Amino acid sequence: MSGNSFGKLFTVTTFGESHGLALGCIVDGCPPGLALTEEDIQADLDRRKPGQSRFTTQRREADQVKILSGVFEGKTTGTPIGLLIENTDQRSKDYSNIKDQFRPAHADYSYMQKYGVRDYRGGGRSSARETAMRVAAGAIAKKYLKEFFGVEVRGYLSQLGPIAIESVDWDEIANNPFFCPDASKVPAMEEYMKALGKEGNSIGAKITVVASDVAPGLGEPVFDRLDADIAHALMSINAVKGVEIGAGFDCVAQKGTEHRDEILPEGFASNNAGGVLGGISTGQDIVAHIALKPTSSLRIPGRSLDVHGNEVEVVTTGRHDPCVGIRATPIAEAMLALVLMDHTLRQRGQNGGVQHSIPVIPKGH
Amino acid sequence: MSGNSFGKLFTVTTFGESHGLALGCIVDGCPPGLALTEEDIQADLDRRKPGQSRFTTQRREADQVKILSGVFEGKTTGTPIGLLIENTDQRSKDYSNIKDQFRPAHADYSYMQKYGVRDYRGGGRSSARETAMRVAAGAIAKKYLKEFFGVEVRGYLSQLGPIAIESVDWDEIANNPFFCPDASKVPAMEEYMKALGKEGNSIGAKITVVASDVAPGLGEPVFDRLDADIAHALMSINAVKGVEIGAGFDCVAQKGTEHRDEILPEGFASNNAGGVLGGISTGQDIVAHIALKPTSSLRIPGRSLDVHGNEVEVVTTGRHDPCVGIRATPIAEAMLALVLMDHTLRQRGQNGGVQHSIPVIPKGH
Amino acid sequence: MSGNSFGKLFTVTTFGESHGLALGCIVDGCPPGLALTEEDIQADLDRRKPGQSRFTTQRREADQVKILSGVFEGKTTGTPIGLLIENTDQRSKDYSNIKDQFRPAHADYSYMQKYGVRDYRGGGRSSARETAMRVAAGAIAKKYLKEFFGVEVRGYLSQLGPIAIESVDWDEIANNPFFCPDASKVPAMEEYMKALGKEGNSIGAKITVVASDVAPGLGEPVFDRLDADIAHALMSINAVKGVEIGAGFDCVAQKGTEHRDEILPEGFASNNAGGVLGGISTGQDIVAHIALKPTSSLRIPGRSLDVHGNEVEVVTTGRHDPCVGIRATPIAEAMLALVLMDHTLRQRGQNGGVQHSIPVIPKGH
Amino acid sequence: MSGNSFGKLFTVTTFGESHGLALGCIVDGCPPGLALTEEDIQADLDRRKPGQSRFTTQRREADQVKILSGVFEGKTTGTPIGLLIENTDQRSKDYSNIKDQFRPAHADYSYMQKYGVRDYRGGGRSSARETAMRVAAGAIAKKYLKEFFGVEVRGYLSQLGPIAIESVDWDEIANNPFFCPDASKVPAMEEYMKALGKEGNSIGAKITVVASDVAPGLGEPVFDRLDADIAHALMSINAVKGVEIGAGFDCVAQKGTEHRDEILPEGFASNNAGGVLGGISTGQDIVAHIALKPTSSLRIPGRSLDVHGNEVEVVTTGRHDPCVGIRATPIAEAMLALVLMDHTLRQRGQNGGVQHSIPVIPKGH
Repeated sequence: MSGNSFGKLFTVTTFGESHGLALGCIVDGCPPGLALTEEDIQADLDRRKPGQSRFTTQRREADQVKILSGVFEGKTTGTPIGLLIENTDQRSKDYSNIKDQFRPAHADYSYMQKYGVRDYRGGGRSSARETAMRVAAGAIAKKYLKEFFGVEVRGYLSQLGPIAIESVDWDEIANNPFFCPDASKVPAMEEYMKALGKEGNSIGAKITVVASDVAPGLGEPVFDRLDADIAHALMSINAVKGVEIGAGFDCVAQKGTEHRDEILPEGFASNNAGGVLGGISTGQDIVAHIALKPTSSLRIPGRSLDVHGNEVEVVTTGRHDPCVGIRATPIAEAMLALVLMDHTLRQRGQNGGVQHSIPVIPKGH
Repeated sequence: MSGNSFGKLFTVTTFGESHGLALGCIVDGCPPGLALTEEDIQADLDRRKPGQSRFTTQRREADQVKILSGVFEGKTTGTPIGLLIENTDQRSKDYSNIKDQFRPAHADYSYMQKYGVRDYRGGGRSSARETAMRVAAGAIAKKYLKEFFGVEVRGYLSQLGPIAIESVDWDEIANNPFFCPDASKVPAMEEYMKALGKEGNSIGAKITVVASDVAPGLGEPVFDRLDADIAHALMSINAVKGVEIGAGFDCVAQKGTEHRDEILPEGFASNNAGGVLGGISTGQDIVAHIALKPTSSLRIPGRSLDVHGNEVEVVTTGRHDPCVGIRATPIAEAMLALVLMDHTLRQRGQNGGVQHSIPVIPKGH
Repeated sequence: MSGNSFGKLFTVTTFGESHGLALGCIVDGCPPGLALTEEDIQADLDRRKPGQSRFTTQRREADQVKILSGVFEGKTTGTPIGLLIENTDQRSKDYSNIKDQFRPAHADYSYMQKYGVRDYRGGGRSSARETAMRVAAGAIAKKYLKEFFGVEVRGYLSQLGPIAIESVDWDEIANNPFFCPDASKVPAMEEYMKALGKEGNSIGAKITVVASDVAPGLGEPVFDRLDADIAHALMSINAVKGVEIGAGFDCVAQKGTEHRDEILPEGFASNNAGGVLGGISTGQDIVAHIALKPTSSLRIPGRSLDVHGNEVEVVTTGRHDPCVGIRATPIAEAMLALVLMDHTLRQRGQNGGVQHSIPVIPKGH
Repeated sequence: MSGNSFGKLFTVTTFGESHGLALGCIVDGCPPGLALTEEDIQADLDRRKPGQSRFTTQRREADQVKILSGVFEGKTTGTPIGLLIENTDQRSKDYSNIKDQFRPAHADYSYMQKYGVRDYRGGGRSSARETAMRVAAGAIAKKYLKEFFGVEVRGYLSQLGPIAIESVDWDEIANNPFFCPDASKVPAMEEYMKALGKEGNSIGAKITVVASDVAPGLGEPVFDRLDADIAHALMSINAVKGVEIGAGFDCVAQKGTEHRDEILPEGFASNNAGGVLGGISTGQDIVAHIALKPTSSLRIPGRSLDVHGNEVEVVTTGRHDPCVGIRATPIAEAMLALVLMDHTLRQRGQNGGVQHSIPVIPKGH
């Protein structure tokens, strides 16, 4: 209810500020029997970790996760899994000069209006650092989905500022620091980021996430539609300003004959639906796209006010990502995995054990 | 939990199938003291009602709402408000021929996979008819927001297929059957819809909703961000495939200096944020855009399968909207109002009565 | 969140005032495939209905339930079930004289402090009439539990004022107007109630509810224990002031050797636990007892204040139950059934489909 | 949803096994502005801590709590408060012999049926050790209630086996190891416990908790009544088998004239209601009683089965409380405080800012 929990049957609750003692979360509702080690979680955390290339923030956090509960003799027990990451590389002095400023496009002003107080060090709770625990929890969901239901959740950078990818090679994504699936675009991205760095500016990005081999029938009608919950999950990631399912905004100019995914004996003829019809999965790939705004922490001065209403010039000199989208792929994957894990458990609960024998349509495109 | 409820402190739960006896909902959490009559709700229902122009479905439902509880001597009492609309113009025979078909881009197949059974008459629960109760509940939220908090929630059609509006005149919206705020585009829209009707095809649309004079400080950080809840609410509307807040997908190609809304003594210099920073309202206009897919009920035959796996040619001859986007404006307004009403109450609960004196920034652009 | 919903996967939300147009509820989360007619629900409503003997209120409500949605061709579809009961025998003038009074032991004062306003006719929302919808929803849960899981939920009056039962004959319960399972006590109860009627007074009662053949393993540890949710459910019934599971308050004076239910090859040797250990069902009978206070609507004058703070003498002359406990058995059964239905679905969701082969202990005592 | 969270606006989620690395919890929804240190929480933890007298378990846990987030410059910020207690005195070898046994009256069997697996060391998640985090979270609620709303939550042991207290002296409670408010009974309790220790047996107890100066108007009608939520909260404590509000089971034999709390200009004439009418607080003291069963870990052998279905003789030789009730007073206080804190915030949310001027009745008795 206070906004720090996600999911109904597979529930993640997080805590922690950017420059506090630690970040942590509780994963409540993971079924028993999943083999789980800290390494399983660490792998995804390392994909998100800052300081891995010159194109991301130079803050160097070990981001070493500890499992505090819920796992016994190497397997989950069904009881809540407590996860903890201690903060090690806070440089709080970096932030003292902006303590009273409302940095443009940051949460400073809105937090102050909500709470009347805020931990200004590194953005406190509004820092992207909070997403580490989403990735940790998502890693558990991804592993469960993969091992028990055969579902794979993957993502990639589909556009960096003006540079859009033209093809998707899943094997390429891990070969470059951008999560870019199109090797031909990587040099242009590198050039672009270097120029941006010199300029002291930042840039937006677009990320695509895909879940394959999802069972048909997941999602609730009306309000808790699968696509609505995905939209909720993805829009809750810092800096996200737009979410599309399948054809997304392209469908505004599509005609019905163009948009509708016809069904052939060999499967669906297209996937404009993005794997969801009437809020419920069809078994096709779940496909979602998100738009991430450019980082607002810039060396280029910006005009603003301080907490007393005085005009100030804001210059941010801390360590920041020039493109938050670059590290966002594992976060988006994690959120999609959390939604799918939750709805898979919900569907098992909701149907009360009823069996039916509706033939399954091959996923086709 | 089963997907038919929305909101945490201001909670709406709906029921009803397209061709059942009635649609209804319970609005739980409306504070006491709001003057409320059936006419207050009916006004918005009439804006959504089918059969009002040649461009919408010719099904003619009276959509007459009854208040069954929660109002005493003309005012809400704080107890749950039961609302009921009886269905009057069902022609169930229209649908018998498609009883066993999986109509492309409809929820037929996904519902069958979820439930093993469905009320096929008029789409049953997956019918857009379900949105009538959203509009009814939203009308209560809109009235409360307006009278107690001075918030106004309004919307318009911003694009119909290839025709995008170029200006917004709030007074124009009620003058045409499209909710179009740009009078100069109305003739083109009429022509477009006529041609589409002859063709037997359908078209997508884009809707924009705006909430003005929202208090700063609404929304929870992390998962229940105001924008995340708005995305959830709007994506839960039938046919919606994309949601944007503020600059939305435009921010992918924006630089930080371009996107950040600077703050001047006279107010925010721009509103790329769409009124939300860090998931919390800033007091600027909340602005959201949604993409609606073209109706999938077409006279033009489409290929599909039936429940037995046989190939079928699907032709839909019932009464349907050629552009579901046309009637969607009141629905989108209703959903935005529900989110704002809920977060307004949550904020009052969460802050525990704490007062602070952070100066309010004028909303500017 | 606003208190009118119960259950997480099997969720019941009710509305309606004693003297409003109608009472209703939405049952959200009933799995598809349950054969369901209005008669199935009516049977339990008739057991609760007032005016059936001289020992209950003479208000005569038909309490005829209508199913408005969620059932198609005689079976549930998985979509929300809307239920409606129209009020027919309101005599609102009975209540005008107490409009401004705070009747002792009624909710008049606490409602006014909460809401600042109340529908004073017949107690409005705080009327025991609200429990009709609990019984209606509970009838669906009872039927599902019985047909799909073999669980039987039954109850009886275990004490009426000073008269405690000494034996339980399940077949006797329907033979008397008290739900008394001990035929030898019925004459004394009749005498007692007649004397009480002459006196113009009321009396408390104790009800016992039992669920048999419940699967072991239901309930969540820590906060949502099965017994905690049962306590919540039963204490939420009007007039209930105490809840016991199994040995209940007797365990205060029990030693460990006396209380612990030893386990023998032929089953549990006793059932002090009431079928729940560590918050989770053991497969033994779930046994709960509740204490119901005497009705507060009395002909015998009581001292109180009015809304202006003036002293008043309160005399209640409407039609009231001299012992609310008498009609409470079906209500308690309904609430127990709702808890068990919810936890059965939750358990199916939570375990994610994991199978295990722990041997089942016979239920024994 | 998975049972490890409590509260809707003030939400506590706990994790941790008896013999795992640590126990922890997240308190989500604490409003900003509360001065809070680890010492504030430690004080209540020390009251609950084992090993403080010869009458409780000799396990010696430091139970030193750390605040990991949500507090900045000595005050809460409104963001989630992460709390952690590391386990230090686990002797896991004590438990290896009972690894495969279903100890009578323990959660061994029900956990195995639910999860198919369990952390058997020290009871794992079902250990009373889990209550440490309830006390920690409750300490925050108690402090907030006291400082912002003037509410005091206190408790005492009202019966130890056959020894019932006869008077309540709040100042006496801290002077003896039993939380006994009646000094005259302490010697008898000491004698009783010594004899019990020699016998190797255990005993039940009764605890009373009282909240004073609670605002009238807290609680939701129908399902989330204040008393129903209190029953849920208290019944969720390990070993509790019964909950009473006010007169509790005594009301079974009370007449209406006896039970109803008349209202005089100087206040309520009695408090049979225990401070709640119609599920909503009246401003009188909230009074609740709970029954705790005797500990089931005994040196005296008990008959049972093991996981393979074989007969076993169970003897428990670890360190255990002979009367779990003795240390339960701070836990019961914590749970009552959590309910009141939650409903106080809910009421502020629900009423939407509406003011009314109903005169407040003095609390009287």
